[in-house]
Amino acid sequence: MTNQLDQLAINTIRTLSADVVRKANSGHPGAPMGCAPMAHVLFSSFIVANPSNPKWPNRDRFVLSNGHGCALQYVLLHLLGYNMTMSDLKAFRQSDSKTPGHPESHLTEGIEVTTGPLGQGLAMAEAHLESRFNKPGYELFSNCTYVIAGDGCLQEGIASEAASLAGHLRLGKLIVFYDDNHISIDGDTELSFTEDVLKRFESYGWHTQFVKDGDNDLAGITQAVVNARNVKDKPSIIKIRTTIGIGSKDQGTEKVHGSPLKPDDIAQIKKTFGFDPEKHFYVPDSVSARAESRWNKLLEDYGIEYPEESAEIKRRFANKLPEDWTDHLPRYTPSDPSVATRKLSENVLNKICDVLPELIGGSADLTGSNLTRWKSAGEFQADSTGIGTYSGRYIRYGVREHGMAGMMNGMTAYGGLIPFGGTFLNFISYALGSVRLAALSSFRVIYVLTHDSIGLGEDGPTHQPIETLASLRALPNILVLRPADGNEVSGAYLAAIQNLQRPSAISLTRQNVPHLEGSSIEKTLLGAYVLKEVKDANITLVATGSEVSIIVDTAKLLEKEGIKARIVSFPSFELFDEQSLEYRLSVFPDGIPVLSVEALSTFGWLKYAHANFGMTTFGTSGPYKEVYQKYGFTPENIADKAKKTIEFYKGHTLVSVVQKPF
Amino acid sequence: MTNQLDQLAINTIRTLSADVVRKANSGHPGAPMGCAPMAHVLFSSFIVANPSNPKWPNRDRFVLSNGHGCALQYVLLHLLGYNMTMSDLKAFRQSDSKTPGHPESHLTEGIEVTTGPLGQGLAMAEAHLESRFNKPGYELFSNCTYVIAGDGCLQEGIASEAASLAGHLRLGKLIVFYDDNHISIDGDTELSFTEDVLKRFESYGWHTQFVKDGDNDLAGITQAVVNARNVKDKPSIIKIRTTIGIGSKDQGTEKVHGSPLKPDDIAQIKKTFGFDPEKHFYVPDSVSARAESRWNKLLEDYGIEYPEESAEIKRRFANKLPEDWTDHLPRYTPSDPSVATRKLSENVLNKICDVLPELIGGSADLTGSNLTRWKSAGEFQADSTGIGTYSGRYIRYGVREHGMAGMMNGMTAYGGLIPFGGTFLNFISYALGSVRLAALSSFRVIYVLTHDSIGLGEDGPTHQPIETLASLRALPNILVLRPADGNEVSGAYLAAIQNLQRPSAISLTRQNVPHLEGSSIEKTLLGAYVLKEVKDANITLVATGSEVSIIVDTAKLLEKEGIKARIVSFPSFELFDEQSLEYRLSVFPDGIPVLSVEALSTFGWLKYAHANFGMTTFGTSGPYKEVYQKYGFTPENIADKAKKTIEFYKGHTLVSVVQKPF
Ligand SMILES: [Ca+2]
Ligand SMILES: [Ca+2]
Repeated sequence: MTNQLDQLAINTIRTLSADVVRKANSGHPGAPMGCAPMAHVLFSSFIVANPSNPKWPNRDRFVLSNGHGCALQYVLLHLLGYNMTMSDLKAFRQSDSKTPGHPESHLTEGIEVTTGPLGQGLAMAEAHLESRFNKPGYELFSNCTYVIAGDGCLQEGIASEAASLAGHLRLGKLIVFYDDNHISIDGDTELSFTEDVLKRFESYGWHTQFVKDGDNDLAGITQAVVNARNVKDKPSIIKIRTTIGIGSKDQGTEKVHGSPLKPDDIAQIKKTFGFDPEKHFYVPDSVSARAESRWNKLLEDYGIEYPEESAEIKRRFANKLPEDWTDHLPRYTPSDPSVATRKLSENVLNKICDVLPELIGGSADLTGSNLTRWKSAGEFQADSTGIGTYSGRYIRYGVREHGMAGMMNGMTAYGGLIPFGGTFLNFISYALGSVRLAALSSFRVIYVLTHDSIGLGEDGPTHQPIETLASLRALPNILVLRPADGNEVSGAYLAAIQNLQRPSAISLTRQNVPHLEGSSIEKTLLGAYVLKEVKDANITLVATGSEVSIIVDTAKLLEKEGIKARIVSFPSFELFDEQSLEYRLSVFPDGIPVLSVEALSTFGWLKYAHANFGMTTFGTSGPYKEVYQKYGFTPENIADKAKKTIEFYKGHTLVSVVQKPF
Repeated sequence: MTNQLDQLAINTIRTLSADVVRKANSGHPGAPMGCAPMAHVLFSSFIVANPSNPKWPNRDRFVLSNGHGCALQYVLLHLLGYNMTMSDLKAFRQSDSKTPGHPESHLTEGIEVTTGPLGQGLAMAEAHLESRFNKPGYELFSNCTYVIAGDGCLQEGIASEAASLAGHLRLGKLIVFYDDNHISIDGDTELSFTEDVLKRFESYGWHTQFVKDGDNDLAGITQAVVNARNVKDKPSIIKIRTTIGIGSKDQGTEKVHGSPLKPDDIAQIKKTFGFDPEKHFYVPDSVSARAESRWNKLLEDYGIEYPEESAEIKRRFANKLPEDWTDHLPRYTPSDPSVATRKLSENVLNKICDVLPELIGGSADLTGSNLTRWKSAGEFQADSTGIGTYSGRYIRYGVREHGMAGMMNGMTAYGGLIPFGGTFLNFISYALGSVRLAALSSFRVIYVLTHDSIGLGEDGPTHQPIETLASLRALPNILVLRPADGNEVSGAYLAAIQNLQRPSAISLTRQNVPHLEGSSIEKTLLGAYVLKEVKDANITLVATGSEVSIIVDTAKLLEKEGIKARIVSFPSFELFDEQSLEYRLSVFPDGIPVLSVEALSTFGWLKYAHANFGMTTFGTSGPYKEVYQKYGFTPENIADKAKKTIEFYKGHTLVSVVQKPF
């Protein structure tokens, strides 16, 4: 059922992909060859985008969930006229190329997301913005999100989490192609994956279809996409049976998955396809450019009728924040009553969510504990459910931490939104795969992580984080913030929202803490600052979050014994590392030993302190004050550790921790 | 349909659970009250176990997946006559009690696993041991695994991964009760969880049933369990509609989920149930004890006919290793050819898997990359598939890292097995939730983690671990091993298998490394050791894994300039920390600056070295030698860093990194 032009295009994708992988002598030829027909149908008949402006807001989104098949995507970008030359293709998987081994959205124009099942988040963003901004006659947001996914993608738990919620949310503009090639890396899928995929997606509330001959039946694929687009109240999955590495002598086996095809095999493929590999692809790029200019005109007209909304769209898609939004951040004085930092976080959300309509978020079924719901929040739900609307901004992620983090990435990739998501600090570990992709992709997302130490008490060691902050701090390009009081919580949100190019994790207590003398929003942005300076100090005490008020009391105890302790509050390692050496030396001067205190793993703290007091084992279940006592987080015990530290370093020429040999 | 005795028992569980949570003033009363009928049916009519020997190998296993409902489990253990007194119940969630806020298997007799969907692994273990050891007339292994799970459990991705594989593996002795109470923490499940759960499990190949009135229909629950037990070739899920917190004024709402009921509410519950809370439970404990003694007699007879198998069962369930198994670990000399440590790991598996029949494992669909399949391995598959048998020991986990780690925990909890699982080091992040539970539960499992740095090359930064080892090292009670050559790989396996009470993560290269002069299996067990000693050294260079041979070359470069460098190979932080201070000082003596080199995050390395060279950003896609060059992992660049380190510390009285103030 394939006309000659279509067949030529498909074979171009296949042979070029094989060449690209061969040239790199590394990579995955099989999936690009098998998926060429569906990709061709999608890009030649459906996807509306503008290669000369890859960031046009209402473009259709395309996600290659099986990112190892990215040769396909690079070839398509090249053929469609994106900024992707033949020499870029030839540099596939080479250092400093824009064609890395797996797609990276921050590196390559036209790549929406860095691998992963983020289609869900993209479709949520569309649903929200459509509901928020579209007006009668003005279909400003109407794009579809198309995903190609393989067996491997569908085996991962995160895909189940996202698919279940996408079904619940009735995201009609999400269309997934399931490349059913019966092959995984270990061999035939009968080894470990024999579930009925379409039935599973039906159970999630999806619309499902099956195309039997995905190698040849272009009409069938086309009709399936048309059907999928016509189903408005359900996401769609189209299972397409394909032959991995089609054309190769090893087609249909795992051999074509992850290694280049042999040169003689490629030669016979080209012969089979009867084929001049230099022939170019049919690209309706003029159509695409017209689509954007039509949209621009629409936005212009919309702006006349709806000037505020139009300005808001432009502001948000330009990644600009409203003027003076920071005036709404609450400030506190030491006379304000003690309160948990998770509650202070709720205060911030109550103040800023109305000023920043791009904030959208919720919790992984811990709303009452994470305190992520602001007073004026509306529920983000399908309008047809009667329990919310897509214009709502409060998301019920369900008990799906990994899915939540993936969706947040997708919403950020869409544009115009700042997503946040709450869970217990300990359970961000369930989501690290997607947290890592946020950091790698330079996505501004905000994790609201409460119950941030053994201080959560009775829920016990299964819930008490120990290693969690060290994990996050060791990850590049993420801000980790553990604020100590009200001003620092406001400062943490300011840092998170101002940092356009990285995610932030805000670590918050379950238990109450006092407001500190000397804290401020501005100082929080420095990462660390001197809360109390003392002349001729014997020691510097440094702590984060709930432990700062404990070292304040420790210093008072020491003072009674004539020992002078400076106090440093340290909300963020990363922000501090970015300050001048001069400033950092003013916080940690030469000659004074530093003792750190944090009720989490000490791992990594030697970077800032000569001696570290913290956790080295798992915690225990019990009322929080008893648990703190048990592990020694008391002014008395820390005063003892301080004296030992002073004693140990007596007579040493102590260099500041911020001085390094290179 | 409930007789009086049953009703009394159920109401005992309900009121006692409410009392327990009230006394603690913290905890979750709703699930124990709602699940009381199903738990009563299970424990009074089906579960065969011996309270006076909670570790009897063929006992039925019970997993409370919704671990927050553990008041239920503690009450049951008390009523069934386990080592759980009324005062233990009264100490619910208090410090140092055996009734922590979530169940912990290492703390409390009768608890099989520390929260989580581990039923899958338990059932796999039974299937394997049954197939391996049962003989005609000797049903030594025949137990069932029963699980109670809530909506939250089923929303998590790991549950989907495990359920899909359990269906594929046709695990007929796994029976899951789904407590369908329509309530999650945020409120009604209509907020975020509206999928058709039974249809989803059908799609995985499960047998499904529905009991409409789980509050009262004991006969229905009983019949469903009978049916489930009769289906031998499919796991079973029984959806049971219940009322959370039944009896409370707030029954059926999220209010009874996570906070104690009010005293007056508890009083009216007891009145409603017409009820003396001191009445005791009907416990068929004599039956249970008889079951074990019958089994012991069976094992004795079996031993006469099958002495080898019987001895093996006893050895394995006593956690003893065969004599002299370590003789099979391969040893190497520097003249042996360079080879990747993942390949050296395969060599070890080839040598020891036949000697240690308790080893069982595989890979998350990366067999050809992780090299986890030993030559004589048989496939672990349902016999009816024709592609393997349950007596096989090679597991195709599929692309399900989190599920894999959970299953490994379950198999360890069952006993008689040492499970291992392979993936890329970077993707252990997907499994951290279960890795953490392995560490907390003191489970001996082995993670085989290949492609352990930017040295994996072309797959690029989505696959190149940076923060991953720091994450694992910051986690308590896990051995992290990064061996440098053949002898160290053998040593790493020795350490992993000898350490009965903790998991091990073995980090392995994709690229080739030479065998080192001076390495040995025995020295590996010390965690760190001097590979090359030099008198009057100017610096100590320390590295792990693939970077050790680089610092060997660095030392040669420095020597040409008259700079004397000692060399330390450092396969494991944790093993080194356990050595005597004297030994540790011999590795890192006072007065000599230490420079560490590892092609991963430097985070945490100051614990052992004054200056650290490593990664502080994400990596890049490219051939591995170019990538190493780009980030400076060359003898030339490291020699430069060494000179800077020596210069910086000139004139300082340098204390050894192992000396600490407290
Ligand atoms: Ca596949
Ligand atoms: Ca529930």
